[in-house]
Amino acid sequence: MVSKFDDRRERLKNELLEMTSLVEAGIRGSMLALVERNRAAAEDVCRSEGRINAIEMAIDQLAIDLLALHQPMATDLRFIIASLKINTNLERMGDLAVSIAHSALGLIDGPNVKPVIDLPLLAGLVQSMVRKSMDAYVAGDAELAQSVLESDDEVDALYAASHQRLVEFMQLDSANVKPTLDLLVVIRTLERLADHATNIAEDVLFYVKGVDVRHNSLAQKLSGQNA
Amino acid sequence: MVSKFDDRRERLKNELLEMTSLVEAGIRGSMLALVERNRAAAEDVCRSEGRINAIEMAIDQLAIDLLALHQPMATDLRFIIASLKINTNLERMGDLAVSIAHSALGLIDGPNVKPVIDLPLLAGLVQSMVRKSMDAYVAGDAELAQSVLESDDEVDALYAASHQRLVEFMQLDSANVKPTLDLLVVIRTLERLADHATNIAEDVLFYVKGVDVRHNSLAQKLSGQNA
Repeated sequence: MVSKFDDRRERLKNELLEMTSLVEAGIRGSMLALVERNRAAAEDVCRSEGRINAIEMAIDQLAIDLLALHQPMATDLRFIIASLKINTNLERMGDLAVSIAHSALGLIDGPNVKPVIDLPLLAGLVQSMVRKSMDAYVAGDAELAQSVLESDDEVDALYAASHQRLVEFMQLDSANVKPTLDLLVVIRTLERLADHATNIAEDVLFYVKGVDVRHNSLAQKLSGQNA
Repeated sequence: MVSKFDDRRERLKNELLEMTSLVEAGIRGSMLALVERNRAAAEDVCRSEGRINAIEMAIDQLAIDLLALHQPMATDLRFIIASLKINTNLERMGDLAVSIAHSALGLIDGPNVKPVIDLPLLAGLVQSMVRKSMDAYVAGDAELAQSVLESDDEVDALYAASHQRLVEFMQLDSANVKPTLDLLVVIRTLERLADHATNIAEDVLFYVKGVDVRHNSLAQKLSGQNA
């Protein structure tokens, strides 16, 4: 027989996964809007915000019910705390996808400045981090969570290179300034999405291993070389 | 006699207040670095990051101890959940102050583009939101928390106007592009700091009133005009 606790815990997890699907669809849709100049895709993303916000509130309530009704300890308690933190991250990620969709709507009628950088490559890396961080949450897989932290460096490097190219492009001609600025905001938003995926991976490591890996050299912590 | 619960609750609150002081000093110091070209102030802000990160981890642990050892209910449970969320916001705010300090270090040797916008006005509004949101947390003051939500609109309007002026300034001369871009990032970071103060105010309203005011017309909720 499944206990009430297990049942609520399962619902909590499933709601977070539904939110993840919406965030992933948001990133995919906003990229489609940018790269293919697809206005309908951008508008779809903007409409998903209400659904994501509703799930965020339902998840917080589920977590509070779990804490108040079951008084969980140890791993169960850490799982709920991690879920609360992941919830906050996913909601922000939904907002960021919507903000890219808004930028896309602004860029659709302008000149095509996108070929200056490899936007799909950057977006693909970010999407893979989101997917892996939540797979790690579901499976309680510390190794997979750890791999997300390493991908963040790759995203940061690609972001820095793209930023440099866009700045050079702006300096060429003042007519480039406005559309390129919008694209600078887009790549910065992708980089922030990657940061949120990293936060999720850290929350997973905290839940699975019971150690706080934030603000530390993770490799040292995991290999036990350092206190 | 003060109970163990009250004692831990008090420590949780005091740690959050210490973190708030560091965040406020970070915003103040990074603005001093920008406006007065004060390199030492920027470097001080960068050094505060480690302390903020250490407090963040201590607060999470205190909150987990409170949940595990005392199994709080109702208002006490909401207070701890709100403290966990505020903790996450304050840590990000510390990071954002450091990122402004880094921008300031980059701008110190460049041309003086700051007079184009009223940076101290924007920073002052943001600092007042941070202060009020945490005063509302300490006093459990819903009205004060509510006033923070209203200030966010003011910050958004000032941000939009400053953004517009900076874009026009960039378009004047390609030599303006690079330093102005850094300043665009600074005002965007100030706007994100205001968003975090707004999140804190919402967490306070949730803790004090037991209602989730996120993603809703708050005025309607509070006046009971709407379900």
